[in-house]
Parts: sequence; structure tokens; C-alpha cells
Amino acid sequence: MGFAKIDHHRTERCGAPEAIYCQGKTAEQVAQIVERMNQGAHDILATRANAETFAAVKKLVPEAEYHETAKLIIVRKETLTPDPDRFILVITAGTSDIPIAEEAALTAELMGHRVERVFDVGVAGIHRLFAQEEKIRSANVIIVAAGMEGALASVVGGLVNKPVIALPTSVGYGASFEGLAALLGMLNSCAAGIAVVNIDNGFGAGRLAGMMNSMR
Amino acid sequence: MGFAKIDHHRTERCGAPEAIYCQGKTAEQVAQIVERMNQGAHDILATRANAETFAAVKKLVPEAEYHETAKLIIVRKETLTPDPDRFILVITAGTSDIPIAEEAALTAELMGHRVERVFDVGVAGIHRLFAQEEKIRSANVIIVAAGMEGALASVVGGLVNKPVIALPTSVGYGASFEGLAALLGMLNSCAAGIAVVNIDNGFGAGRLAGMMNSMR
Amino acid sequence: MGFAKIDHHRTERCGAPEAIYCQGKTAEQVAQIVERMNQGAHDILATRANAETFAAVKKLVPEAEYHETAKLIIVRKETLTPDPDRFILVITAGTSDIPIAEEAALTAELMGHRVERVFDVGVAGIHRLFAQEEKIRSANVIIVAAGMEGALASVVGGLVNKPVIALPTSVGYGASFEGLAALLGMLNSCAAGIAVVNIDNGFGAGRLAGMMNSMR
Amino acid sequence: MGFAKIDHHRTERCGAPEAIYCQGKTAEQVAQIVERMNQGAHDILATRANAETFAAVKKLVPEAEYHETAKLIIVRKETLTPDPDRFILVITAGTSDIPIAEEAALTAELMGHRVERVFDVGVAGIHRLFAQEEKIRSANVIIVAAGMEGALASVVGGLVNKPVIALPTSVGYGASFEGLAALLGMLNSCAAGIAVVNIDNGFGAGRLAGMMNSMR
Amino acid sequence: MGFAKIDHHRTERCGAPEAIYCQGKTAEQVAQIVERMNQGAHDILATRANAETFAAVKKLVPEAEYHETAKLIIVRKETLTPDPDRFILVITAGTSDIPIAEEAALTAELMGHRVERVFDVGVAGIHRLFAQEEKIRSANVIIVAAGMEGALASVVGGLVNKPVIALPTSVGYGASFEGLAALLGMLNSCAAGIAVVNIDNGFGAGRLAGMMNSMR
Amino acid sequence: MGFAKIDHHRTERCGAPEAIYCQGKTAEQVAQIVERMNQGAHDILATRANAETFAAVKKLVPEAEYHETAKLIIVRKETLTPDPDRFILVITAGTSDIPIAEEAALTAELMGHRVERVFDVGVAGIHRLFAQEEKIRSANVIIVAAGMEGALASVVGGLVNKPVIALPTSVGYGASFEGLAALLGMLNSCAAGIAVVNIDNGFGAGRLAGMMNSMR
Amino acid sequence: MGFAKIDHHRTERCGAPEAIYCQGKTAEQVAQIVERMNQGAHDILATRANAETFAAVKKLVPEAEYHETAKLIIVRKETLTPDPDRFILVITAGTSDIPIAEEAALTAELMGHRVERVFDVGVAGIHRLFAQEEKIRSANVIIVAAGMEGALASVVGGLVNKPVIALPTSVGYGASFEGLAALLGMLNSCAAGIAVVNIDNGFGAGRLAGMMNSMR
Amino acid sequence: MGFAKIDHHRTERCGAPEAIYCQGKTAEQVAQIVERMNQGAHDILATRANAETFAAVKKLVPEAEYHETAKLIIVRKETLTPDPDRFILVITAGTSDIPIAEEAALTAELMGHRVERVFDVGVAGIHRLFAQEEKIRSANVIIVAAGMEGALASVVGGLVNKPVIALPTSVGYGASFEGLAALLGMLNSCAAGIAVVNIDNGFGAGRLAGMMNSMR
Repeated sequence: MGFAKIDHHRTERCGAPEAIYCQGKTAEQVAQIVERMNQGAHDILATRANAETFAAVKKLVPEAEYHETAKLIIVRKETLTPDPDRFILVITAGTSDIPIAEEAALTAELMGHRVERVFDVGVAGIHRLFAQEEKIRSANVIIVAAGMEGALASVVGGLVNKPVIALPTSVGYGASFEGLAALLGMLNSCAAGIAVVNIDNGFGAGRLAGMMNSMR
Repeated sequence: MGFAKIDHHRTERCGAPEAIYCQGKTAEQVAQIVERMNQGAHDILATRANAETFAAVKKLVPEAEYHETAKLIIVRKETLTPDPDRFILVITAGTSDIPIAEEAALTAELMGHRVERVFDVGVAGIHRLFAQEEKIRSANVIIVAAGMEGALASVVGGLVNKPVIALPTSVGYGASFEGLAALLGMLNSCAAGIAVVNIDNGFGAGRLAGMMNSMR
Repeated sequence: MGFAKIDHHRTERCGAPEAIYCQGKTAEQVAQIVERMNQGAHDILATRANAETFAAVKKLVPEAEYHETAKLIIVRKETLTPDPDRFILVITAGTSDIPIAEEAALTAELMGHRVERVFDVGVAGIHRLFAQEEKIRSANVIIVAAGMEGALASVVGGLVNKPVIALPTSVGYGASFEGLAALLGMLNSCAAGIAVVNIDNGFGAGRLAGMMNSMR
Repeated sequence: MGFAKIDHHRTERCGAPEAIYCQGKTAEQVAQIVERMNQGAHDILATRANAETFAAVKKLVPEAEYHETAKLIIVRKETLTPDPDRFILVITAGTSDIPIAEEAALTAELMGHRVERVFDVGVAGIHRLFAQEEKIRSANVIIVAAGMEGALASVVGGLVNKPVIALPTSVGYGASFEGLAALLGMLNSCAAGIAVVNIDNGFGAGRLAGMMNSMR
Repeated sequence: MGFAKIDHHRTERCGAPEAIYCQGKTAEQVAQIVERMNQGAHDILATRANAETFAAVKKLVPEAEYHETAKLIIVRKETLTPDPDRFILVITAGTSDIPIAEEAALTAELMGHRVERVFDVGVAGIHRLFAQEEKIRSANVIIVAAGMEGALASVVGGLVNKPVIALPTSVGYGASFEGLAALLGMLNSCAAGIAVVNIDNGFGAGRLAGMMNSMR
Repeated sequence: MGFAKIDHHRTERCGAPEAIYCQGKTAEQVAQIVERMNQGAHDILATRANAETFAAVKKLVPEAEYHETAKLIIVRKETLTPDPDRFILVITAGTSDIPIAEEAALTAELMGHRVERVFDVGVAGIHRLFAQEEKIRSANVIIVAAGMEGALASVVGGLVNKPVIALPTSVGYGASFEGLAALLGMLNSCAAGIAVVNIDNGFGAGRLAGMMNSMR
Repeated sequence: MGFAKIDHHRTERCGAPEAIYCQGKTAEQVAQIVERMNQGAHDILATRANAETFAAVKKLVPEAEYHETAKLIIVRKETLTPDPDRFILVITAGTSDIPIAEEAALTAELMGHRVERVFDVGVAGIHRLFAQEEKIRSANVIIVAAGMEGALASVVGGLVNKPVIALPTSVGYGASFEGLAALLGMLNSCAAGIAVVNIDNGFGAGRLAGMMNSMR
Repeated sequence: MGFAKIDHHRTERCGAPEAIYCQGKTAEQVAQIVERMNQGAHDILATRANAETFAAVKKLVPEAEYHETAKLIIVRKETLTPDPDRFILVITAGTSDIPIAEEAALTAELMGHRVERVFDVGVAGIHRLFAQEEKIRSANVIIVAAGMEGALASVVGGLVNKPVIALPTSVGYGASFEGLAALLGMLNSCAAGIAVVNIDNGFGAGRLAGMMNSMR
């Protein structure tokens, strides 16, 4: 394949399969890359995949699954047993942040981690967040997906002594500038120890959470 | 004075004396404007005044006072009795936000309002904020001064059913972009009913709070 | 519902029902949230709703109304009698600002306020504005919706001693940068005491106006 | 002089002497350029000159004058009689805009035009502007210098049927972003027929006004 | 009409009919405004009109014309004889700038001016420009429409002693940021006496040119 | 043709035919320009052409070819023999950068150069890059096309003593801001001697590479 | 102390003492806060402290130390024994990034971690980096401090299967926009699993690294 | 030296000694790096050096020279004879661009190239440029240093068939945004084959020119 160089050593080197980023690739290119990677032994993940891309993949690799909300294609080849005592918690500020949050959650699950979800607990009704305080405190790593002003990351960061991954989303309008407001808010969080990833980068947040949760 | 047109009708029209914005004016110009306004019956307020400007004013109007933290020059000519039951609360996220918060508080006090202050209760240690919940709930209007990510405005906005004035400050560094991150955060607040003013505009926040607190 | 946490206590706490922000939610999700909230006693408001979303809501909650210009879905459950002596005035600079202005006006009306409208009185033909001066002076709170350079907010703010809510719209092209020029203009208004909300945030402006108009 | 090429033909070609922009040049360089240009027959103008630069110029060209407010060095060599019936009006929104406005006014006067000045008539107290309506209507060309939100240009542009030159200044703070808010406001003015120049470009505004006022 | 206030006095006051800006208005709204304005005696101009809007206008005002390239609807009611000795020249850097240039040219022609056009003479092949030097020098006012880096305005501005109106267009890609590069280039032109208008604001450039060309 | 001035002297002057930039031109305009240029003796290149434009060209100039990935129309009229010992290398960071890279490669080939391609060797798996080190070191000029953070240009620039042309692409999402992150990264490269072109400007990169490779 | 609320519970809650951010506070305020915190049992850290602030602290708390390069004041009260097998590696691209890198390193050391340093191994001379490959691979957590284009974070991220904290610095000029280029580059890194912090936020990077290194 | 890793192999690899970028380094650090590099056989270049840094270097390496305008420290150790037939031409738009242009020129001269200079020939007086046309056409590589709108690069790029390196400078004010306008203008140049470097990056431009001029 002239258009892609597959990185078979990556799993050994980095602890997770290289993902395929589908935007800017034709459905046919993605399908061929998945087929080639399917000759290896590791799980395969394709992000930002639309239905048309999935159809092309399905034709060449029938066992591929599609997660529509998260826009992920997954081919499962490994069986990993999560450690039930060390879970990753994925929190969203609103309902509209769920697709990006699911991209993060599924990525971490594919890496063999237990993932819990708490959705729609933004700071404007902060009692909804505090109702989940016990779960928040028992998580090992927390991902906070939020758009608009992204304040939830600061509040959660102030509650726990575990790393918080701030995942800004492009949810919002006007002066949210497609996620810029949330991104800047999270980068300037007054709570120390917050790790920020790119806007809408659920995959990166999931991978980072998985890496952290594997440390021991 | 060719360089300034004084607006003697303003108090009748708008409920508060026009303030003098000192930046970009020479100390001498400010002093002359204050002197001219001193012929009227109303309080005088000069914002963003440095010590040199105050010295020039003091020479022409000896009764002028200087509030160094807030960089305000005040000439008091009226005696207004605040309504003790309706107070404005000024909250800051951090210690560094105090100068701007004081500009707001003194402006509102000069308009005849009772002002309470709660400083350094940012969201990274949210129990410090909740320790003040009773005071927050009994305020009539609340000003929240915060730099960095400005999340405090959203949290306070979600707690009360009174108007919250979000006052972004330029406190921060790096991607705070001199207050831009706080400003965008506050404009995108998920708490509805938040009024935003310009970065470091303590005077505007104080004036707006005074106006709201006068409504009945 | 895993995807949304409904905030039944909000009306008591904040004086108004929580609104549903429809963008980024599926029609089906909005419909289910409205149906669940319909079990409560309070009015329901869904903003930025398109026709497809309304159709889904209508199926589950037949009494829902749709305001197409303002893109609002409303379910009325309360009967509030506005105080005729205290009205909110909604002004637009141009005809293209009307949809956002209506979002603000309907939001405030749903909160039980009398709302008056004056449309298309931008500063380029300032006599059109002054022809409305009496109405402007008798309003209790004023919302000014304007795109392009947003200068109308400053002019109105200089005329009255009541709070002015500046509502920038994305009307314009080129260097308006989808409302940024209006937003910056309003934040830098030389008229003190102006409250700014996010670009196109008619709902926020309406809610804030309602809150202010309830103060006494 | 290796560092500068003087453009002796410019006056014939463009109707005005080339000005020397002093920033980024050493005092010595400016002085040598002025001395060389002084061998010609035309007036000389050096903009953004500080006192040190003037001292260096004065040593080589003793007849040079310094206008401190406008930061201009002028060497007068021509006697032009302005047409009293066609005047340029320079208006400022505030006192702090005067230095830039004077740069514009002096530039136009040096080109042989009558210039009138009206300072400190910003839109927040719009009756101050209307008190000058007759003078505004009798001007042939109008320059409006304003910082902050720059709304004055739109209001003046709506009052007259003569060209208005909008001159944004860097007066302001916070979200004025050193004149950006005023610049964007003026570019998006809802009043048609407004000519915008760079932030703080008093020289350019004066030159443009002079050119326009020479048309017949 | 609740949605629009027609400004019948504008022609007397400003020398040109108020134009209707079609974006953000429904086809029906535009048609009704044109019909109402058609009761007056002046020409009517609607900018940024698409075919659907024209169809709606045509139904109510059959004599309306549509200029597709420039997206203008015109209703001619006046006969003005241009002064053949004083013409406005409209220059473009490339072929893609023609639609905006035509908006400017037609606007000025409707105001009763003679307009000449020279298209596709950008600075990358500067001999194409110099081949037109005589025409450029004989123009009374020049409009330069250019996207990308907008350098043509500076070169033309350096050639003539008449006002140059720089009209940035959104032609370009990547770091042109939809016309921002051209706009900034024109605002910073090293040629003095250049009047800048908003990106793609052909109407404003045409109106300003007409105003200037009427001065005598 | 009123809408375009063809620059027949360009090849002599600049060593390459003027290309036609198709965006913002109608298919008919492009076709007519190609037909006119076809009367000359040089190759013709039209960039950013879609299928509809190609169809229009094909009708008038049947020998035209279309390169779909690169969106180029080419009419070959010259036979140039590349120097096999001096080749241009085109490298991409990912598969999604290929269309822009092909625009560059085909442009350089049309100028008579040998071009080699190495795709999908981004820095996240840097051994893929080093596997190509010999080819990289033997190239005479290198083009590096990369989106996202654009780091590949710095790494390649540090490996060779030949000029590197950094070609940022708009591949990415969120805070890539449509290629801005890659552009800024490349402009700030810590490797000296890197030549940057506009985002997605494959044509410019190819032309520049051709010019450099012709130097001797 | 009205100006600060000390958060004595923070160590229990978050695993590290609250740091004092000195910018925007007077030397006297910092000194009083340190003195008050000194009554507790935990280490104290004050960031971005200048010499004058340290002098004020020293007077009240003589055992305070000053780290000039990193601008840190430290009061040591605890003795923590680092785990020698799990170290944090701090890497810089250049010499100018060292002050920020030291802020990170000292913060992590104060939390009880072993920290190793590798400075001046930017990607423009990538063999300098690979000479350190063994140390890089044996680290448990890696902080990469880099200004300019920030590419080093991507290269390191591609080499290891441990979390990488990308710390952008404001080192650079021109289009680095005071660290923005490095920040955007790091957010868009093609290497997955990178945690980004604010520009020049060495403290946050150190705290995050310490938190991660404590996970087991 | 813990703070710097010297890259002795660089000259062989890249054809030019590694330069020392002085900003962000102490004078003492620079002096030590120069001293260490002085043990090698190659010329040494330190950029953006102030007088204090030079004094520190001079003490350890007495043969070092200082070029004040260009802010360069040079230690000459090699004797290279330039090829007189292949020269690099450095052009500036204005006098204020000379310091950056000299940084470029001296860098290229140190690499062993003949450099010619033509200063102050900006496009506003384009005949000054054309007076130099012969010299421009005989150059082998051209560097164009320009601030403000940077249009000179486009005009020169259209005149020649040799590579043009566009070097934006931070000369300007207001909407030049410290060189951003020039940078964007150059990136969007309508003349193909222009290589852009960072704002004020004279060193990079000189290095790139030297590399190109060495190709044969």
C-alpha cells in the first residue's frame, strides 16, 4: 500500500494498537488499511468513521463492529480482563458531549480497562455532580468531557487526588468558537494536575486514561 | 476646556455621575476635569488613576481621596444611606483578583449601596465557596471576579436566582491571553442569566450592580 | 434516562425552568427529555429546535407549541399575569436580528413578564431610534439585539438609567467574524452599566431580563 | 544614504510630501533624512517622533517644529491658503483620542486645508454630539477618531452625506485588544460609505481627508 | 411592517437610497420591503440577493432587474446623466474578484456615475497593471478589489494622487482566512491615503466612491 | 476575454507557465482561459479543479487530463527530460496529506523534474521515517507535507543539508484550526533553513521546489 | 486574612500542598500567607516569586529557600524518600526552556519523587535525543518542555508507552505568539496519549507528573 | 555543560554551524557555549545578542566581533571565497527593516556567499524598485524583508525566475499585529514560488538563501 505504512511494532512499543483516523481518507483506503492490519494479532480501532466507511470495511472484514454514537469501527481480536478495582470514570457536562465521551470510553475499554460513565452533571446544577461524589472519589482516573465554558474540569479537579483528563468538546455556539472557550478554560484551570487534550479528541483522552490506569 | 465636554445632566439621566477614565489622559487633564466637575453637586469618580494623577488632583481638589488597591480617586459630595436589607456581594476566585473587585465594590458603595465582600473562594477548593453559601443566597446582586478559567461565575450562577455579574480579570498567564480565557468562559457559561462585562472592568460591574440593586 | 439528568429543583432555586438546548442532541433525546419534564408542574422551553425535533416532541407531548422564527418549543403549564407597569423592551438594529430577539422576548414572556418590541432602529438612521425615545425611557429593562458593529447598545445605554442587556448577533459578513465584532463592540461600550451575553444567546438575554425585572 | 531612498517626485505624483515614519529608525537616521529632504522645496513631516528624535533633527534643521501631543516634527517651506468654505472636521469620542486626532488634523492642515476640531462627544452622552450637528453637517469631510467600541463613526456616518473617515484608536483595555474592537466595529458599520484606516493611523486619515477635500 | 422601518428621508440626507441587505431576511420580507419602497421616487438596491429572493421580488415588483454575478436586485426609477469627465475606475487583482467588484461598480453606476473596469491585473504580473497606467491616472476615484495578499492596493496607491478605496475580497484559501490577510494588508498599506472597507463589501466601496466622486 | 488577462510572457520571465486557480471562477471561465492559453506553446496547469470544471475544459480542449486526487487539470505540450541525478522528494506525515502532496509532485514533474514520493511517515512512529533515511539524504530538494502539528518538517530539516519546503495541510480537527497549528509549527521550526508556504498550497510548494532544483 | 483563604484540608484531599501563585499578589501578602501556612505540617511552595517577594518571606519564615532559575520559594517540612525505581524524566528542547523545566522538576521532587533531567535535545539535531533513548525508555513519566514549534513532544510520545506531559514554553519570537505555536503543536500531536498543560505552567506539569507517578 | 548539548557534527550534516539563539539564555550561558564551540574549527554565530551578552563573550573569546544593528556575535575561523557570479540580493521595503535584513545578509556572508543590498524600495514608490531592476534580475537568490503589508515580496516574485525568500518583519503598528499582517500577506502571495520564514527571522532567511545558492 503506497498510501499508508502500518506500524506493526507499535503495540509492543506503546501498549496499544495504532488507530486509523478516517477523516481525509477514502472509505476504500480505510477498508484496505483495516484488512491489512487484520493480519496482525491486535485489536483495530478506526475513529471518526461514518456509515459509508463502515460499509466498505464490513465488506472486507465482516467481523468489524460499528459504534454509531462514537463514530468508531472496532475489530476485536484480543480478550483482556479488566481489573475491577481500578476503573476509569468518564463524566460529561451535558447530553451533547456524549458522542465524544463515548469515543474516549470505548477506546479505554478496548485497551482492557473497566470504564464507568456519569453523564449530564454540568456545574450549573452542581448538586447533580455532588450526588455522584462517592463514585468520583473511588475512580482511579477521570475524564471530564465538557463544551461551552468547560468549568466542570476545574470543579472535579479540586475534588480528587487522582489525575483528571480534561476533554474539551465543540459543543456550544457564538463565542465558544467551536470548543476554543472550553479548551482555554481547561488549560487555565485553577485546579493543578489537569491534563488537557485537543478539542473533541475522545480517542486521545481514552488512550491517555488507559496508559495512566496501567501504571503500577 | 477644549479636551473634554462635561456631562452635567448625566446624573439625572442615568442615576450615577460620569466617571473619568484616567488612562490616556495626562495628570493635568484629569485634575482640571475633576476641578470643573467639583463645581457640581455630585460625587466624582476617577478610575485607573496612578499616584501621580492623584497628586495633581489633590493640588486642585484637596478633599479628594485615593484608594490605591482599586486605583480610584473619589470626591464625596453626597450622603446616601444604603438599604441594609439589599446588599451587593462581591466574590473573588483568588487574592490577585482583589484590585478589580475593589474597583467594583467601591463604585457600587459610592452609588449608595451596601456591599459585602468574600475573597479567594475559587472552584479548585469548592468547599471554601460552599462555606459562604448562606451569604451568597441572601445577596440581592452578586459580582464574581475571576481570572484564569473564570469557572466560579458558572458555579455561583447555578446556586442562586438573582442576577450574577461575571467580571473577568486579566489574572493568569500563558493561554489565559490576558483575560480572554476567563471572558470566553463567562460568555459561554452553562448557567443562564449571567451578565458579562469587559475584562478588568470593575467600574462597569459596580455600576451595573448598583443599577440592578436600585430596581424595585 | 442515562443521557440526561433532569433538574426538578431548579425552578425553586433559580426562578425559571431549566431550558433544553437542542443542538447536539437527537430529536429523540429531546422528545424524551420534554416528556419526562412534562410530569412536573413547570413550563418547558427547548431552544434552537428545528422542525424535525418539534415533530418528535409533538408525538410524545401533543400540547407543545413551536415558534419557528425563534426556533423555540414551548409547553405551557403555568398561568402567570405580567405586571403591566414594568415591561421589558426588546430592540433590534435590523430585520435580520429578529429571530434572536424573538428568542429573548418569548423566554421573558414565558417567565411571566410583559415584553414590548421595537425592531429595525439601527444607528445608521438614528432618527428612527429617537422616534421611540419615550417607549425606551419607560421600559424597566432593555435588551438590544444587534449584529455588525453593535453600536446600538452604546447609544441606548447612554439614554437611560435602567440596565441594558447587549445581545450580539451573528448578522454580518467579512470582518464581523460571525458576531465577534458586535460582541467586542458591546464589551467595550463607552456607556457604563451594560450587561453582555454570548453571541446569538437570545435565551440568556431573556432569562437575565426576566431576573432583573423580578427584582423589587 | 544607503539606508533610505528619498522620493523627490512624490509631491508631483501624489499631491503631498512623503512622510517619515520614525519608529524603528534611529534619531540620527531621521535627522539625516530630514536634512536631505530639506534641500527640496516641500514641507516635511515626520510622524511618531519622540523628543530625542526631535533634538537630533533640530540640530541639523533648526527651523523644525515639534508638536508634542501629536508626536509630529514639521518643517514648513510652503505657504498654502486654505479654502475657508471647505473644511475638514475632526471629531473624537473621548479626551484620550486627542493625540491621534491631532496627528490627523495637523497632517491635513499641512496639506493646505482648513480643519475644525470637536473633541469628547462619544455616543454614551449622545446629546453632546447633537449639540454639534450644525458644524457636522457643514463639514466637507469628517474624520471620526474613537477607541473602545468605535460606535461614533456609525452614528456620524448616518447623519451626513459626505464621506466619513473612521480612525480607530488603541484607547481602551481588556477586550478592546489595543484597538481591534474599534477597528472591527468601524469596518462593520451599518452606515454605508465609511472609509476605514489602520488603528492609530492619524497620518493616513489626515492624508486621505486632504485628498478628498481637494477633489473638485 | 413590524419587521422593518423604511427610511424615506435617507436620500435627501445621505445622497443615496438605503440599500436592503438580503442575508438573514426571508425572500418574502425582502419582497415586501421592496414593494413598500417602490411607492417612493428613488432607485432601490438589494444586495446579496439569491435567485429565490429575486423571484419573490419580481412577483410584487415586475420591473425589478437581477444582476446575477453581483447578486444585486435593482429597481430603476431615476435617470441620472453621469459626468463623462469624472469616472470611477474599478480594478481587480484576479478573475475571482469580479463578483464583488461588480457589486461596487453597479452601486456607483446607480448613483449616477460613469464607471470603468479593468480586471485581472494583479501584482504577480505587474506589466499587466502598467499597461493600464494611463487609464489609472485619468480616473477620479479608484476601487481596488483584491483577495489573497491584497498587494495591488498598495501599488495603485503609490501611482496616483487620487483617493484609492481598497476592497478586500474573501478570495483565497488557507492562511488567507477568508479575506483577513487581504484586509490586514490593505490596512497596513505603506501607501498613504487608502480608504479600506469590510471584506467583500462591494456595496460600501461603491457608495463611498460615489460620494467622493460627487465632491466638487 | 474581459475577465482574464493571459500572461504569455510569463514562461520566459519565470520559468514556468502561469497556473489557473479554479476556485471562484465558473467552469465556463476556466474552460475559456485554457482554450486561449492552448494557442501558446507551453504546458497548462489548472489547480483546485473539480469534475464539473474538467468536463467544461475537456469539451473545448479534448487533450486535457484530470488528476482527481490532486484536483489538477493538465494540458501537456512540451517534452522535458528530467535529470535523473537530481530529484525532488515529496514526503507526507499521513495518508490524508496525499492529495496536497500530489498537487506539489505533479506541479514539479510538469516543470520537468524527477519526483520521488514517500508517504505516511509521521513522527509518531519515527522509525518509519528513518527507514527512508538514505532516500532522504540523496534528494536534492525535499517537500514535507504535514497537517496536525507539522513536526515532521523540523525532524527532516535537522537531517539534511538541502533546502526543505514545509507544506502545512489542513488535515486535523479541533485546535488544528484548519492547518493553522501546522503552519505555526513550521514557521517556528527549530531547524534552520526551512521554507514555508501557505496551508494546502501544493502548487506553490511544487513550483518553489522546481525553481530550486533548476539552480546550478 | 481577608485576602486569602488557606486550604488546610487540601493535602489530604489532593496529595499535595496548595501552592501560592505569586503574580498579582504583593510581597507582603505572599509573606503573610506563607507564615500562616507554616503553622501546618506540610511543605510550602510559592511559584513565580521574584527576589523581592523572597526577601519578604525570608523575614517572616527564615527557613524558606529560593530557587532563582525556577522562581520558586520552598519551605521544607516533610521528609519523603523517593522510590528509586520509578523516576520522572524532564526533557527540554533547548537551553532557554530550562527555567520552566526546573519549576516542573522541583515541584515533583517536593512531592517526593525521583526526577532526572535531560536538557537541550530538540528535534533539529535528533541524534542528541536518540543518544538518551535508554534513559527515556526507563522513565515512568516524562515531561517534555519545548517552545517554538514544540515538536519534541510528538517525537518522544512516539517512542514510549508511558504518559508524556507536554509543557509548552513561551520561548520563541514572531509567529510563536508567546508559546501559542508550541501549545497548538502539542494539542495536535499525532502521537496519542499526550497530556498538555498551559504555556509555561511548569508547576502544573510537575504536579501532574507526581500524581501519575504515585499511581500503583 | 548541563544546560546545552553542542552539535559538532552539524556542519558536516547541514553545511553551516549551529547558531546560538541568545534570547532566554543568560549572558554567562552564551559565553560558555561560545567558548566550548570555539574549540572546534567552524565559524560561530550568536543571534539576538545584546551588548551585555557580547561583553561576556568577549571576555572568554576575545576575537569575537559584534554587529550591533543586526544583534549578531560572530567568531570567524574559516576563510571562504564567495563565487562572484552568484550573489544573494537582500532587499528591504523601508529603512526600519534594515536590522533584520542585516541579520540575514551577515548570516549568508558567513556561509561564504556574496551578498548585495538594496534598501528602502517599498511598493508605495514603485519606481524606486524598478530603478534596481537590472540588479534584481541578475541575482541568484533574493531575500525581501518587509513589514506593514509586505507587498514587496509579491512584486519582486512576479519579476524574476529565481527563488524569492519572503522575510516578514515586525515593523508597523496597529493592525500589523507585530508582523502578522506581513506574514499573512507573504503566505498568500499571488506570485508562485515564494518561500516564507518566521517574522523577524533574518537568520533563517540567510541560512535558507545560503543553502539555495550552494545548489549546483
